[in-house]
Amino acid sequence: MVTPVKVYGPPMSTAVSRVLACLYEKNVEFELISINMSKGEHQKPEFLKLQICAIYYYMCDKHTDKGNKGLYGIDPLAKASIDQWIEAERQIEKKLLKVLDIYEKRLGEASFLAWDEFSLADLFHLPNTQYFVSGTDKGNLLTSRENVGRWWDEISSRDLWKKVK
Amino acid sequence: MVTPVKVYGPPMSTAVSRVLACLYEKNVEFELISINMSKGEHQKPEFLKLQICAIYYYMCDKHTDKGNKGLYGIDPLAKASIDQWIEAERQIEKKLLKVLDIYEKRLGEASFLAWDEFSLADLFHLPNTQYFVSGTDKGNLLTSRENVGRWWDEISSRDLWKKVK
Repeated sequence: MVTPVKVYGPPMSTAVSRVLACLYEKNVEFELISINMSKGEHQKPEFLKLQICAIYYYMCDKHTDKGNKGLYGIDPLAKASIDQWIEAERQIEKKLLKVLDIYEKRLGEASFLAWDEFSLADLFHLPNTQYFVSGTDKGNLLTSRENVGRWWDEISSRDLWKKVK
Repeated sequence: MVTPVKVYGPPMSTAVSRVLACLYEKNVEFELISINMSKGEHQKPEFLKLQICAIYYYMCDKHTDKGNKGLYGIDPLAKASIDQWIEAERQIEKKLLKVLDIYEKRLGEASFLAWDEFSLADLFHLPNTQYFVSGTDKGNLLTSRENVGRWWDEISSRDLWKKVK
């Protein structure tokens, strides 16, 4: 009897949905074991493993004869091209982190973006930041930062924004 | 009797929520007139106007004595700093458009990212792209592109992704 692969993670996270997509495409049985992000369980090694590319390459190598056989390419040229476009996807997040570094620095110097009072500059950031924080699972990249997190708590809890939402 | 400002736009769009945030902060009465994006009404001049910075500056100038009096700064230095951080917010979207240009070009050369078959490279893009398309109002920046739109339709309608969702 084949033991199904165990996937530990918060359902609906990008890391889990990506690994499940791979398991479905390779037609490999799995068991999803939910973990609770609010309890910090997503810092456990079992979940962190899902975020490492090597686990995907391992799954494709181990199950060459199952499901989509060309998922990780059929020759070194295809593999290299696949690696390159996986890296391109990661670069988007890295670019975002660099932008957040600039905001973090600025909000360490002033209470708000333009000066020490709420202004149009902060107001302009409300709609897209709200989508980022509430509509994706990447919100913690922003809310976990000391200055950006404080700023977001402050501007998103202002009366004007409660009325709009 | 003061005629309330009329705001034409799809409720919940970033453009509308931003202008409503400004009207609430300035304590200016308004009337929201809903328009239907599926009928292309968001291409009407009334809605497009909301996306122009000048409308915010105009509102702050016209209603200097109402609501938050320093919303667009109290001196030229503050105004310049506000302009700079509004521009920073716009640059994030411009960077994203540049990234999408690269994907559009690539997907004009091949059916999928790495080669002419679905691979791990496409699979890696599924979770974050899904959030972008479904969780924000910017999805049309991606789906309206000829090649990227075709690619997204194809990879997001694959069985593996229907099962994950």
